[in-house]
Amino acid sequence: MEWTAGKLAKQLHVELYGDDHQIVDDVASLENAHSTDLSFMLNERHVDALRKTCAAVVVIERKWLDFCPVSALIVENPHLVFSQAAELFRPRKLPSQGIHPTAIIDPTAQCGLNVSIGAYSVIGSHVSIGDGVEIGPGCIIQSNVSIGSDTRLTAQIFVDIECLIGHSCLLHPGVVIGADGFGFARDGSQWRKVPQLGRVIIGDQVEIGANTTIDRGALDDTVIESGVKLDNQIQVAHNVHIGADSAIAGCVGIAGSASIGQRCTIGGGVGIAGHLVIEDDVHVTGMSLVAGNLAGPGVYSSSLPAQPRGEWRKNAVRLRHLHEMEDEIKHLRCEIQKLQQRAGCPGTDNKTQG
Amino acid sequence: MEWTAGKLAKQLHVELYGDDHQIVDDVASLENAHSTDLSFMLNERHVDALRKTCAAVVVIERKWLDFCPVSALIVENPHLVFSQAAELFRPRKLPSQGIHPTAIIDPTAQCGLNVSIGAYSVIGSHVSIGDGVEIGPGCIIQSNVSIGSDTRLTAQIFVDIECLIGHSCLLHPGVVIGADGFGFARDGSQWRKVPQLGRVIIGDQVEIGANTTIDRGALDDTVIESGVKLDNQIQVAHNVHIGADSAIAGCVGIAGSASIGQRCTIGGGVGIAGHLVIEDDVHVTGMSLVAGNLAGPGVYSSSLPAQPRGEWRKNAVRLRHLHEMEDEIKHLRCEIQKLQQRAGCPGTDNKTQG
Amino acid sequence: MEWTAGKLAKQLHVELYGDDHQIVDDVASLENAHSTDLSFMLNERHVDALRKTCAAVVVIERKWLDFCPVSALIVENPHLVFSQAAELFRPRKLPSQGIHPTAIIDPTAQCGLNVSIGAYSVIGSHVSIGDGVEIGPGCIIQSNVSIGSDTRLTAQIFVDIECLIGHSCLLHPGVVIGADGFGFARDGSQWRKVPQLGRVIIGDQVEIGANTTIDRGALDDTVIESGVKLDNQIQVAHNVHIGADSAIAGCVGIAGSASIGQRCTIGGGVGIAGHLVIEDDVHVTGMSLVAGNLAGPGVYSSSLPAQPRGEWRKNAVRLRHLHEMEDEIKHLRCEIQKLQQRAGCPGTDNKTQG
Repeated sequence: MEWTAGKLAKQLHVELYGDDHQIVDDVASLENAHSTDLSFMLNERHVDALRKTCAAVVVIERKWLDFCPVSALIVENPHLVFSQAAELFRPRKLPSQGIHPTAIIDPTAQCGLNVSIGAYSVIGSHVSIGDGVEIGPGCIIQSNVSIGSDTRLTAQIFVDIECLIGHSCLLHPGVVIGADGFGFARDGSQWRKVPQLGRVIIGDQVEIGANTTIDRGALDDTVIESGVKLDNQIQVAHNVHIGADSAIAGCVGIAGSASIGQRCTIGGGVGIAGHLVIEDDVHVTGMSLVAGNLAGPGVYSSSLPAQPRGEWRKNAVRLRHLHEMEDEIKHLRCEIQKLQQRAGCPGTDNKTQG
Repeated sequence: MEWTAGKLAKQLHVELYGDDHQIVDDVASLENAHSTDLSFMLNERHVDALRKTCAAVVVIERKWLDFCPVSALIVENPHLVFSQAAELFRPRKLPSQGIHPTAIIDPTAQCGLNVSIGAYSVIGSHVSIGDGVEIGPGCIIQSNVSIGSDTRLTAQIFVDIECLIGHSCLLHPGVVIGADGFGFARDGSQWRKVPQLGRVIIGDQVEIGANTTIDRGALDDTVIESGVKLDNQIQVAHNVHIGADSAIAGCVGIAGSASIGQRCTIGGGVGIAGHLVIEDDVHVTGMSLVAGNLAGPGVYSSSLPAQPRGEWRKNAVRLRHLHEMEDEIKHLRCEIQKLQQRAGCPGTDNKTQG
Repeated sequence: MEWTAGKLAKQLHVELYGDDHQIVDDVASLENAHSTDLSFMLNERHVDALRKTCAAVVVIERKWLDFCPVSALIVENPHLVFSQAAELFRPRKLPSQGIHPTAIIDPTAQCGLNVSIGAYSVIGSHVSIGDGVEIGPGCIIQSNVSIGSDTRLTAQIFVDIECLIGHSCLLHPGVVIGADGFGFARDGSQWRKVPQLGRVIIGDQVEIGANTTIDRGALDDTVIESGVKLDNQIQVAHNVHIGADSAIAGCVGIAGSASIGQRCTIGGGVGIAGHLVIEDDVHVTGMSLVAGNLAGPGVYSSSLPAQPRGEWRKNAVRLRHLHEMEDEIKHLRCEIQKLQQRAGCPGTDNKTQG
């Protein structure tokens, strides 16, 4: 189907300023858009790019209309509407490729309709695969795993026995679901492995980034609720619980039995200690350490931004003697009080103390 | 075989309080145990769960006996004894699956008895595989690798040429052993690759978590001693040495030629700089940076826990001016001393200074 | 060919001190070299090892000649010259293995001369593979990917559709190129996926470490310029730009649309926030957080080295009250000024203030 600005506005139920008949055949950024591209403006940082864009049509908030040199679709959430439009031009879902002849599927596995299974993938016994599921090449799905309808495993993904994955999920290459948690009991100076007998249970519409690992529970299950979005290279330890619609950026590590609420956002590189609770609607800034419970809602941080090394060192060295600095301040206070008594002038009380 | 509380006590050589004939057929957590499950109590945090458990039998320390509503096995280390018991109900080791017809094995490779090799695994020339080794699907073992008896490579694991893996090890999916270290020589403004000619040598009973990477040495070898436990997503650089029975949590990065002693524990997300020595029995808390030698035994830390962002910012900003704060304190001390001399009262010496 | 010290000196165009006819047949470290090995001295840390070495010949700077007990090749950059020599004894490039019969190659893919493709690799439609490319076993290359001549993909690597890789690159196992970026638009309390339509474009002579992930751009491309060296377990988010000849150590996370200049070095475990610019020749020390633009050239840091936990806690606790400490200092200053006025002695001005 050929799209015009007018047809797009109608399809997306939004208001069009400009030429109804303007042809639109692809999407692009403001900077790189050509004369038949749809583009969008994310925020004020991009107002210059808007002024100079060669796009055919731009999705913007009403307040930017005066800066827009071309046709505009007026919306409240440009990012959201643009991503809906983008799927019209670049549909994500591929038609089913069917079962590749080199895929090895245990006879006891059950496949729904329109399932794709890629080359050199291996499906174990009693695996259940829902309608429209796409399993890419080089995936290994162990026995008794269940995968809900329309879920996509892109490639080279491992899912261990008994794990459950909901519908409409998207898992990226290198994801490992259900490997053993890191559980050992002390036996003198040595470590004895504790069998990891729980599962990983993943809800619906969960996205999991490349090379992210989610360990199975020790006895109970590791749980990722519906709508959770996990970026690349995240480590989720055994018995972690992540609440619905929380989003976690890359390189985050979550230790065993940590519980994260709903609608939380965790910045990149954050470390979350084990056996703690982060309540709903908590936001943690990148590279922070969560070492205790966080009572939401709110924003929490413990990260330090880089300075020129010379300055940083002067500060870092003193940080290592902060308690001495405090003692010195206490000492000075005493000396001053003595002088004040001697001079017969009681010092004004320090509001910041006691 | 059907287990009863009495048979379990006998098998594990522990004391039973309660009904000898109580049937036990599985293991579960205190919270989720049913009337024929064995459970255990890890520590005081779980005393309420103990009070309410529906388990058939619980493994506990003697001091908790009064809180236990059901039969109890009395031990000094419940975690250890429970994990021994768990293997009676859920044996980890699978019977040998034999060699899958799609496994590609070089004719010069040598396999011991009862070896399993999974679908689409590739075994290179002159590889030596011990008795009872299990290599899962999708593994790639390059030439001249040696794998000791009863070691298990779960799936999708890569082991590069000449690396040695001991017996009774367990490697999880996505592990990469023996890739090139990060070695480059400056050549003007460019980098010239330094050939990485060492190996990775892994001892016995080593466990390596999902997506962990261990680089081969540059000239000498990277060495992981027996009994070491590595969690997921750990990076071990070239020529690192990790001593026996040390345990390292997820997302740790260890730079080149660092040497870690025996029985150390390294918390999650820790960074360890290169060319340093951590002695035996050192413990580093999560998200710390080890930038110099650590003389064990002891606990070391440099991590900062997250605060509400407003408070944190007030502190982080001042941290960037700590040296000025110290100068100000010095200045105040001078002013006080002048006042003291003027008033003819020498100040008491500050114990915390000089 | 058999090498002697004399032939080596001639081949490398360097000065030899010692026996021309000394046989050299391999390379080794100073500590482990045998009587026919070539070795080298990286820096003064190794002077004792030089004194005691049993190597046949050592590559050193002139200033160490007096400490060298054996024949010596005198150079300005021993690391560089040694790595050139090492390739004479341990050539990295293997002869072409050709196309393995189990490799699945789409008929529309184009292969150059002397291409190797390993067992169970899958090459998609319209893929272009240059002369001398080596694709190891278990790799998955999706449609419309282009790989330049003499580039090597070791094993188990995933490259998604439309990504471009230059010539003479080296990618290690578990690398994921071109997976979706982490892009979601808020839709009430939920997240709606934003299609990731850009590519990853990688220049020439780029090395990428094991399990490193580089996400495709959202609309525009993610770009890695020529000569960049990436260590293991690095996360490069969508629309990141890394300038030529920059080197990035393991476990670094780079957030979306960050731009890193040329010839930068980024230490291990560093976190780089999104939408910022790091200029050319910037160096960031390990475990630092880059939260804003860094104007090069220079060295930047925000990392804190571990202390014994007792000391650290005393400091960390006070850090959480730093603003109160500053208020107290201000208060003391007032009190002192009052005393000074009373005593009729104006305090000397504090150079460090105002």
